[in-house]
Amino acid sequence: MSKPLSPLMNRQVLLVSRPQGAVAPDNFKQVETPLPPLGEGQFRVRNHFLSLDPYMRGRMNDGKSYAAPQPLNEVMIGGTVGEVVESRHPRFTPGTQVIGHFGWQEWGTSDGTGVQAVPNPQVPLSAWLGAAGMPGVTAWYGLNRIIAPQSGQTVVVSAASGAVGSVVGQLAKRAGCRAVGIAGGAEKCRYVVETLGFDACVDYKAGHLQQDLKAATPEGIDGHFENVGGEVLDAVLSQMNAFGRIALCGMIAGYDGQPVPLRQPALILTQRLKLEGFIVTEHLDLWPQAQTLLAELIVQKQLHYRESVVQGLENAPEALIGLLKGQNFGKQLVRLI
Amino acid sequence: MSKPLSPLMNRQVLLVSRPQGAVAPDNFKQVETPLPPLGEGQFRVRNHFLSLDPYMRGRMNDGKSYAAPQPLNEVMIGGTVGEVVESRHPRFTPGTQVIGHFGWQEWGTSDGTGVQAVPNPQVPLSAWLGAAGMPGVTAWYGLNRIIAPQSGQTVVVSAASGAVGSVVGQLAKRAGCRAVGIAGGAEKCRYVVETLGFDACVDYKAGHLQQDLKAATPEGIDGHFENVGGEVLDAVLSQMNAFGRIALCGMIAGYDGQPVPLRQPALILTQRLKLEGFIVTEHLDLWPQAQTLLAELIVQKQLHYRESVVQGLENAPEALIGLLKGQNFGKQLVRLI
Repeated sequence: MSKPLSPLMNRQVLLVSRPQGAVAPDNFKQVETPLPPLGEGQFRVRNHFLSLDPYMRGRMNDGKSYAAPQPLNEVMIGGTVGEVVESRHPRFTPGTQVIGHFGWQEWGTSDGTGVQAVPNPQVPLSAWLGAAGMPGVTAWYGLNRIIAPQSGQTVVVSAASGAVGSVVGQLAKRAGCRAVGIAGGAEKCRYVVETLGFDACVDYKAGHLQQDLKAATPEGIDGHFENVGGEVLDAVLSQMNAFGRIALCGMIAGYDGQPVPLRQPALILTQRLKLEGFIVTEHLDLWPQAQTLLAELIVQKQLHYRESVVQGLENAPEALIGLLKGQNFGKQLVRLI
Repeated sequence: MSKPLSPLMNRQVLLVSRPQGAVAPDNFKQVETPLPPLGEGQFRVRNHFLSLDPYMRGRMNDGKSYAAPQPLNEVMIGGTVGEVVESRHPRFTPGTQVIGHFGWQEWGTSDGTGVQAVPNPQVPLSAWLGAAGMPGVTAWYGLNRIIAPQSGQTVVVSAASGAVGSVVGQLAKRAGCRAVGIAGGAEKCRYVVETLGFDACVDYKAGHLQQDLKAATPEGIDGHFENVGGEVLDAVLSQMNAFGRIALCGMIAGYDGQPVPLRQPALILTQRLKLEGFIVTEHLDLWPQAQTLLAELIVQKQLHYRESVVQGLENAPEALIGLLKGQNFGKQLVRLI
């Protein structure tokens, strides 16, 4: 195989201003930057897919959060998968498929720090950004390490058709639980029940969330995986059984503007609940265990996932804006090649 | 010792109506009831002290809570200490000091179920309702089993001069922590620092709770023991460090009327906090361990506590109303003898 010609220019998207409320296209700017020659020990990656995720909204703010804000006028952060095309590194040789955090750009250059060769080549490359990647491990961690459900218990997950929620429910079913999703719209709910195999799904857009959730969880809720916050969390809290566990993974409803209050915090006491927030990247020691399981389930076609792919880096800002409005259906990706 | 004459009449206080909002004196009614002769295996207790506690407010409601509501037209529940005066029971002989749940009445009759002989006679009898009793064990459980503080960390407790809060802070100091109280008024705060030995105490009535709490916890808060809820919990939440733990023991602010919301629940996620509600009577297996320690500290004068005693069963309703308004100072007791 002949060595590919070195690329000269790299298309990138920078964050150039912080959102006032909702994210707007002009918070971003696309630029072309010359690629420097590789230094000793470096390698060049052609990114195939960029992952878009709700956490990005939090990083765009300047406030106190669990991670440093995305700096202005730098390449937006983001997980990527791609292939090494040129290398002066002993291990990351050309042709190696890699998972990295190269952000919103077509090319990445690295010395290997934070880059992982794909552990199981039978898994489709894009799945390392979804069911076998950060979202899948997030689902695994919250379910197993916080909710720790027992067979026969009821587990609820919001954003159930999404990259994280879909894995939560499928793993809960495998643990012998009743899995109930919450999602926006009849189409997503149908997918959650018919394709993903949840026992029930509540459409929060139908206008009677509390009532429908009660009907879908006749024995109450023992474990809840929260990806949304706001009125969804309020509704779930009212339906929790004693000693229930709530894993807090996303509170997207509060990112724009004012914080969204929790209506009845006293239920945490009266029902002796445990609420725990977590960030999966702080538990890297558990990733190999989780990813091995998730990859196996994917290869055996026992773990379903759905992707929503837009073509081209230039469409990433609009795709993120849509994701934050709940317009995507399945794991949101940008194809860069 | 001659056998005391059997009493004929028993003064009791019944709950006769449920409060609409705040508790009112006419929710209660005092009655005199003839005492039946002892059956085989029974014994009679002269109650010396009745304990008044915030949990009683919750039981007066009819709504969903962790325990069954106090039935109407029955003797109000409550912890008591007293002495056996007459017995047809092999173990609870006359003169035995006992801890029980005889409720708001001067005499109790029992077959021994739920009654405990005082484990350490060097401890003053009334302390088994306070620092060595349910409030003390509550403090021990929440601090050790939920907050689990490490030396050098900062632990905050609300209602810090109260029966539970005072023990939380003193145990936190013994664990090498910075202990910060929140209490209402300069006098209580002075007591918390000067007598109980906390490092600082914030007077929430002074009008700048958030600012004063920030000043008192310059390195943030790692563990919080919540006895109050409402704006106190909101203020603490804003000051929590990453991976902080919050033990929810009381949410008194929400008992009357509308639930009090939690303003910024997203902080639970961004700071990766753990919140856990608990009821100490659901962990009876741990009581002996906790009570042994607390009794030893009391005998060695290493655990300070303060009592607020009203004389006479007829004053119990007003004393409970005052307690629920935060007017008591130290463990609220009613002396019945």
